[in-house]
Amino acid sequence: MLDMFFRPRAIAIIGASAKPLTIGYRIMRNILDFGYGGPVYPVTPSTPEILGKASFKNVTEIPGPVDLAHIVIKNTMVPDTLRDCAKKGVKGVIVNTSGFSEIGAEGQKLEDELRRLGKELGLRIFGPNCQGVMNTDPGVRLYSNFTFARLKPGHISILAQGGGVAEVIDNYISELGIGVRMYASNGNACDVSIPEILAYWDEDPGTRVIVLHVESFRDPKAFLDAVSKIKKPILAMKSGTSEAGARAVASHTGLLMKDDTVTDLVFERCGILRFARAQDLCEAAIAFARASIPKGRRVGIVTNAGSPAILATDEGIAAGLELPDPSPETQEHLRKNLFATSSVHNPVDMMATAGPKEWGVSVEALLRDDRFDMVLISFITPFFVDCEGVAREMARLRGETQKPVLACVMTNTEWKGTLDILDNAGIPVYYFPESAARAAAALADYAALRNRAAGKVPAIEADRKAAAALLDTAAPAAAARDGWLSGAECERLLACYGIPLAKSIWVDSVESAVRSGIEIGFPVVLKAEAAGLVHKGEAGAVAVGIADESRLRTEAQRMLAAFAGKSPKLQLQEMLSGGVEVIAGAAAIPGLGHSVMFGLGGVFVEVMKDVRFALAPITDEDARRTICGIKGFKVLQGLRGRPVADVAALEGILLRLSALVSENPMIKELDLNPVIAFAEGQGAKVADVRMRV
Amino acid sequence: MLDMFFRPRAIAIIGASAKPLTIGYRIMRNILDFGYGGPVYPVTPSTPEILGKASFKNVTEIPGPVDLAHIVIKNTMVPDTLRDCAKKGVKGVIVNTSGFSEIGAEGQKLEDELRRLGKELGLRIFGPNCQGVMNTDPGVRLYSNFTFARLKPGHISILAQGGGVAEVIDNYISELGIGVRMYASNGNACDVSIPEILAYWDEDPGTRVIVLHVESFRDPKAFLDAVSKIKKPILAMKSGTSEAGARAVASHTGLLMKDDTVTDLVFERCGILRFARAQDLCEAAIAFARASIPKGRRVGIVTNAGSPAILATDEGIAAGLELPDPSPETQEHLRKNLFATSSVHNPVDMMATAGPKEWGVSVEALLRDDRFDMVLISFITPFFVDCEGVAREMARLRGETQKPVLACVMTNTEWKGTLDILDNAGIPVYYFPESAARAAAALADYAALRNRAAGKVPAIEADRKAAAALLDTAAPAAAARDGWLSGAECERLLACYGIPLAKSIWVDSVESAVRSGIEIGFPVVLKAEAAGLVHKGEAGAVAVGIADESRLRTEAQRMLAAFAGKSPKLQLQEMLSGGVEVIAGAAAIPGLGHSVMFGLGGVFVEVMKDVRFALAPITDEDARRTICGIKGFKVLQGLRGRPVADVAALEGILLRLSALVSENPMIKELDLNPVIAFAEGQGAKVADVRMRV
Repeated sequence: MLDMFFRPRAIAIIGASAKPLTIGYRIMRNILDFGYGGPVYPVTPSTPEILGKASFKNVTEIPGPVDLAHIVIKNTMVPDTLRDCAKKGVKGVIVNTSGFSEIGAEGQKLEDELRRLGKELGLRIFGPNCQGVMNTDPGVRLYSNFTFARLKPGHISILAQGGGVAEVIDNYISELGIGVRMYASNGNACDVSIPEILAYWDEDPGTRVIVLHVESFRDPKAFLDAVSKIKKPILAMKSGTSEAGARAVASHTGLLMKDDTVTDLVFERCGILRFARAQDLCEAAIAFARASIPKGRRVGIVTNAGSPAILATDEGIAAGLELPDPSPETQEHLRKNLFATSSVHNPVDMMATAGPKEWGVSVEALLRDDRFDMVLISFITPFFVDCEGVAREMARLRGETQKPVLACVMTNTEWKGTLDILDNAGIPVYYFPESAARAAAALADYAALRNRAAGKVPAIEADRKAAAALLDTAAPAAAARDGWLSGAECERLLACYGIPLAKSIWVDSVESAVRSGIEIGFPVVLKAEAAGLVHKGEAGAVAVGIADESRLRTEAQRMLAAFAGKSPKLQLQEMLSGGVEVIAGAAAIPGLGHSVMFGLGGVFVEVMKDVRFALAPITDEDARRTICGIKGFKVLQGLRGRPVADVAALEGILLRLSALVSENPMIKELDLNPVIAFAEGQGAKVADVRMRV
Repeated sequence: MLDMFFRPRAIAIIGASAKPLTIGYRIMRNILDFGYGGPVYPVTPSTPEILGKASFKNVTEIPGPVDLAHIVIKNTMVPDTLRDCAKKGVKGVIVNTSGFSEIGAEGQKLEDELRRLGKELGLRIFGPNCQGVMNTDPGVRLYSNFTFARLKPGHISILAQGGGVAEVIDNYISELGIGVRMYASNGNACDVSIPEILAYWDEDPGTRVIVLHVESFRDPKAFLDAVSKIKKPILAMKSGTSEAGARAVASHTGLLMKDDTVTDLVFERCGILRFARAQDLCEAAIAFARASIPKGRRVGIVTNAGSPAILATDEGIAAGLELPDPSPETQEHLRKNLFATSSVHNPVDMMATAGPKEWGVSVEALLRDDRFDMVLISFITPFFVDCEGVAREMARLRGETQKPVLACVMTNTEWKGTLDILDNAGIPVYYFPESAARAAAALADYAALRNRAAGKVPAIEADRKAAAALLDTAAPAAAARDGWLSGAECERLLACYGIPLAKSIWVDSVESAVRSGIEIGFPVVLKAEAAGLVHKGEAGAVAVGIADESRLRTEAQRMLAAFAGKSPKLQLQEMLSGGVEVIAGAAAIPGLGHSVMFGLGGVFVEVMKDVRFALAPITDEDARRTICGIKGFKVLQGLRGRPVADVAALEGILLRLSALVSENPMIKELDLNPVIAFAEGQGAKVADVRMRV
């Protein structure tokens, strides 16, 4: 419960000031201007009164109870002030002051002390190095913040780690005249965390949608666990996508998994819709605050001007919306009731002269037509039309439907009356047709994200004891090889988890190689493993399609000679032919577990980077989506008359791989490359594996 | 010269009205309200005076000279009115009236009559079914249009085919307080064309940038020829990208070439920068109107708040900008002059307390540092800072530099003074950091587009006479096969243009097949051609790697039997091994010539559609860019230790292909698939070819 921050009964501003250009003054003024109902106590030794409020030298001297203290004093003075606050019975403090972990080691020490003190004193801390909070609830009216947005009450709550972006979002939405519910920017977040605020807002009846901006996940696992339980829509941005962090990875999977991939995985698992641009995020939030969540992605567009509706159509289709034509009955109805030159397809184009009657007929008809999940109005306000009458019709229909209605109204303030009617009816209104189309697509995307089957993590039969023992035994030697396990160890681990492998025998002499070759049956593949050897193919350590004993003998001799002195081992493998080359893999995500990856093999993964990730442990549905989601999925569906690949077998491999890494967190990265997928019903086999612990 | 439309000495409004809700009234009012300096003559039989101007029953009765008539009367009355206008000596008419080609055949007839009459009478026609024109030149002040934008004079000229989109763009820019120079929306464009208006504006000293919206190219060749000569920046949208036109094509090249590809090719050749969203287009136009064109894509960001600058960085990097760090000297200079906690990397983050001095120091330092081509200011207006002082510093620096300076100012109207200073200094100002970054990227993209080497269309040695004769001879028979030439004909055509082919012999008996196989040398490839046979591979009409005479005999017998009765022919080909499979192709573009296509072969083209197009005739630079521009170009650069492919040979093939189709326009579509590219210096050979005339 964060009521002490968002619904305090009284507030002290510690470090309040009478000088207008100080933060201590600005916060006082913001709180008073915004109409906060409870007592406001300035705390400062330097002036007896600020903005008509008597000030106190110390928070302990305040006569009545105080729930919240907003602290704006020097960083080194904060700890003592916390003690005073605790003495006074304050429940929460907002520490505006900077000079904590953001400035380095010394600041980190001070922040650690704050955290410790908070725990010890039973005092919740918001910040430090933060802006503060706002709450537009008419029963509260709290603006405990030094920013300048002119809030009106509404249903969008905004939480942003970075104060600057918080302000950009808040101010933009407010300047559009759209209401905001609550606002928080908690800076260094030494105590009150982002997931905690999200959970609090999930219970707030006034919040319909949450806008979130994060710069980093302090504890991704805690974020995931807490936020995946939240029921309200969260629309989010994560910035810093362009920063290429240097990481020590060597597998394809590790290299392909960017920081940004991890964000995607976390957001997807939490059911959070992600945006790349702040403006798109704000515009979508307006739709979520005002419209219901649609059943699907079929949108009907009604317009009085052709060309803007085409912009909405282009953008909508690009964003994944569908624009079916109205049903024959609807078309017939429209034909009867609109001007002869109107188009009754989708978009329905009524021409500029359409008045309230035509608009009402068209929008009502599309809302009633079960071919549409939502309706988008594209309206340029002609001076010769009763535009307010049109708006009243839209407002009436908005009140009668369960389907989302969005509007793009291309006009200016001369038509303020028209805009006000739509606004009061709670219709989300945009200026650009593309904005309305993207907002509609965001609603549909959210519906799809929330409605998709979660699936189950199936029980995997595995020899877990043997796998754990093998890893324990192998790890010390692997440490000397930068963590890489030997090929034989990798294969045994996969076998423990039932992952199908190409037949393989490890030997260390030419004669045993020949015997094993005969045992496996020609043609065979011969590979060498040796100390320091990484790229086998380029080092001449792979020979495929060996057809007979004599060729095998020659190759085995050559490889043993080439890697003499580097403890060479030879691997005899059955030659897998036919089938499609794919890659599967896994990589550890610090603080979060592992990702599981799938893609087409060979040049596809190297050049096109056409892969998909999921967060382990994955469900059967995750496995299916990961495989079907790659751009090259067609290759597995039987191209140019080739057989359809055994996708079920690939799903099985991903699920087993997921169990292997989830249950053995010491595995850092892992490539099954290639895996050969045979025709449907004929399975798939791993042909090569690399694993680092 | 379109002065009669944009700089008329006097205007008649034919169909003017005294009724406020009519277009005839609105145009009168707009012209008078906007302060047009010349005489305005309402022409109408129904009222003696409109808005204080005496009206005339017929345009011929007007006493003084009239350059422009704006016509707002019934469509069928327009022709007679044109005759009256000609009699009066009117030079141009804007036909606002609808009911022409946009309504079908009857309207088309009327429009054809208009065009014919215009030619006959020496009268230029703007429209019909159009809005009209505007010109903010203080010496003209013309608003001959019924829309509602509140224009102020500026440097952006707007031309849009669709009146609705024209209004959306014009109104948005105007509501931002940005000036517009001229405006035109010419609807059906039966006479005055888009290229003609663009050329007129190219000569207008007040126009710095042109915003263009097209829905279709009536005559793409004429557009290309005229518009590629224009020197001013054109920023454009083409809508209708989502419409999938049904086309009769059967080649890969034809299938991959969308309508939208053609737009890209035309725009690219004209040096036009294309945008997908109207808002992005408007925001870029503001930058072009106010900033110079940068030398490169290196941008330095200066900010007083970390998180918004990160949004600008993310978006900038995604849009192709580069953000190098300042030079060591600049960093040292910044360190000395900024607060200790500032970051002197890129973005330079001065902290919220930075005042005019710090802003001046930072921006000036980056402008002087030759590591940067432009500077982006990211400014949240803190209440405790002299923001107008900061703005004055920026204005001073803007006046002293040749480099573009863009600003993102996150504020509201409380800081109007600050915004006004920046505005008066001619600095493009955005609200969202991403908008500023995208606008900067648009400047850099335009610079790159304009500065890139055009290259030359090299002279190609070819037996043109033989090729033309072959096509003439082959075409009648091909017509019966849906236009497809025979394999032998295709090969001879390629040979005429010096395109290297795999050795190939066409035969029609088993014995001659065997003889030819021996002549070519084993292993060989055997293919069959037969009536109605399209997908050879799937029909069993291809056998590769035939190693000896007996296998060749068997396969030849099998194929001849399989296609008996369908006039089968056999093709013996040398077996090309090693090398990389690529595809090259060409397809006719109605009214424009041909495209030339390049991509990686096999699954890459089928699944990933990773291809690039260029407009024939292509230059050597076009050929290079087409090949280097595919996503999978790495495959040609020697992947996993494989040799680098002979890109020069591929360029040669594209150039010859371009000559072949440009000089033989009857070729409709053409696939060279696959072409095998060997190692550098070893050339490339076409292994299969299909061609339709």
